[in-house]
Amino acid sequence: MTLRDISRGAGEWLRGSGPHSDVVISSRVRFARNLAGFPFVNRANRRQRYEVLESCRSQIMTNRLADNTLWVQLADSPAIDRQLLVERHLISRDLARRTADIPRAVAIAADETFAIMVNEEDHLRIQVLRSGMQLGDAYSQINRIDDILEEKLDFAFSKRFGYLTACPTNVGTGVRVSVMMHLPALKLTGEIDKVKRAARDMHLAVRGLFGEGSEALGDLYQISNQTTLGKTEKETLADFEAAVIPQIIAYEHQARQALLRQREKQLDDRVWRAWALLNNARVLGTDEALQLLSHVRLGIHTSRLDRVDIRTLNELLLLCQPAHLQKVTGQEMTPAARRIARADLMRQRLGGR
Amino acid sequence: MTLRDISRGAGEWLRGSGPHSDVVISSRVRFARNLAGFPFVNRANRRQRYEVLESCRSQIMTNRLADNTLWVQLADSPAIDRQLLVERHLISRDLARRTADIPRAVAIAADETFAIMVNEEDHLRIQVLRSGMQLGDAYSQINRIDDILEEKLDFAFSKRFGYLTACPTNVGTGVRVSVMMHLPALKLTGEIDKVKRAARDMHLAVRGLFGEGSEALGDLYQISNQTTLGKTEKETLADFEAAVIPQIIAYEHQARQALLRQREKQLDDRVWRAWALLNNARVLGTDEALQLLSHVRLGIHTSRLDRVDIRTLNELLLLCQPAHLQKVTGQEMTPAARRIARADLMRQRLGGR
Repeated sequence: MTLRDISRGAGEWLRGSGPHSDVVISSRVRFARNLAGFPFVNRANRRQRYEVLESCRSQIMTNRLADNTLWVQLADSPAIDRQLLVERHLISRDLARRTADIPRAVAIAADETFAIMVNEEDHLRIQVLRSGMQLGDAYSQINRIDDILEEKLDFAFSKRFGYLTACPTNVGTGVRVSVMMHLPALKLTGEIDKVKRAARDMHLAVRGLFGEGSEALGDLYQISNQTTLGKTEKETLADFEAAVIPQIIAYEHQARQALLRQREKQLDDRVWRAWALLNNARVLGTDEALQLLSHVRLGIHTSRLDRVDIRTLNELLLLCQPAHLQKVTGQEMTPAARRIARADLMRQRLGGR
Repeated sequence: MTLRDISRGAGEWLRGSGPHSDVVISSRVRFARNLAGFPFVNRANRRQRYEVLESCRSQIMTNRLADNTLWVQLADSPAIDRQLLVERHLISRDLARRTADIPRAVAIAADETFAIMVNEEDHLRIQVLRSGMQLGDAYSQINRIDDILEEKLDFAFSKRFGYLTACPTNVGTGVRVSVMMHLPALKLTGEIDKVKRAARDMHLAVRGLFGEGSEALGDLYQISNQTTLGKTEKETLADFEAAVIPQIIAYEHQARQALLRQREKQLDDRVWRAWALLNNARVLGTDEALQLLSHVRLGIHTSRLDRVDIRTLNELLLLCQPAHLQKVTGQEMTPAARRIARADLMRQRLGGR
């Protein structure tokens, strides 16, 4: 398996199925782990970083965590490959950007249900990704992976604090739970700010498509827990599964119903304009493409339009981004050339002229 | 014939044919005339205004200026009918708005090649309208009408000044020549301001779709002479036909060629987005509709698109305007309801969903 397969591939989360997939795009659980006896990545010297990388690589690749696991040495990878992995949420922007003197890598399951970053902020960042609202399944899978690795690797752990991590906000369980939600109706009705404030009051982070500091392009919001200390993993997860996310899903559903009842024509207008532009534009930027895809998705979930399936929209969500676009067209392009190629790709995939 | 027929009808200029019709929508010649022995309209008393109206009516309606002439008493007309006539450029905004104490009317040829306003600023405002660049034909026709009326009506004329008019800028020949031009490429390339400045240097007025003070909606510009004194009618006309308008046509053609050569994809993008939105919007304002129709028209004339003919675009140019929209749908509507009806009409006429 190569990165090219990944870029064309069909990650599990792309299916667009899973519970509550009309609002929840994907669920993610992440563990932060560090090897005992080694300084944290930023404090380690070159030799230590190589030792950590090699220990992790051998355990990850020999223990058959998945049927097929791809190991990508990031220091050797071209920038476009690293960007591709960021666009697929398989590595963080930070890991993609690190300078070459930190040896770093990511192990990716062929179906993209997990990705394990090595030598990011922590020695190991294990993440499991699932389509729709499947935090429970994701949690079971990440626990299996964590257990397998913990048998062979000595994780830094303190009886008082729990798992030790480079950043204090991750100390404790080292768990971050995050859910990618599509909230176009809350955006259109202007209620999204209320949701954001409420989430912040509950110590949740609300971020855009690419995490910290990124804009909520395409009406996609990542909701995640901010502190891990003082709560058990199960509490954190139960909070998310039983209270927080169902509440936001209910708000979005209410907003969609309100649009249907009170502004049906305006809703249709948004949806059909978006569909028309995706099928007819000749020049198309990433941000606009994401916004149009968002309104078409809303149109499908409110039964205004049925000419495309969610799986295709999920694929286009990735393919419209710069690195993916260049990977599928097989050439490097200027931003101007990309805008044309992006419009061509949309028309081709959606059946427009 | 009634106003309803007019609103559905096919005026000569709607054909979209005539010389240079890829840039010139229509040509118009207007004469201002006043009856000797009566004060100008604003100075006249009620009885005098009625006398003028009646003298003009009897001569206009009995002399068979056209196969079929409609006489519309504007003081008795509902506001929507007056607005309809404004939208068709058959009466001025001023005439439509005048208070009821000034008896006023318009005589309209069934094919809309002429309209004669009575008791506007002058006792008579005769105008002839033609499709494309046909100032010569328009001038011949208006002269015939003027000659016929002058045989029966005594026009105020001074040997020194020529025809006397209420506003000094019309004194002399009383002729205003104006051409409605579609200049989307000059707008897109940003060169329209240069053209406007040049026109002003030549003492020409450059106005929007509805004359003085109106915006250039839909990239439509009315170019007209500003002073009539000191030039013969023939000189004014020759200037327009031989020099001014051909020059602006050439500029617009150059701008279209430049778009095709240097920004073909961007041009296609504008054209196809406009087409897509007209065929898919569910809510559509007048200004946006005019702008989209403009880009589709540009697409036809630059061979980017051939799914609609110019005649249909000309009809839609009228039908998308508030009074027309209400006339064809047969009901009075709020602005919000009109935006929906306008979008419905576009999809229906253009074959969209």
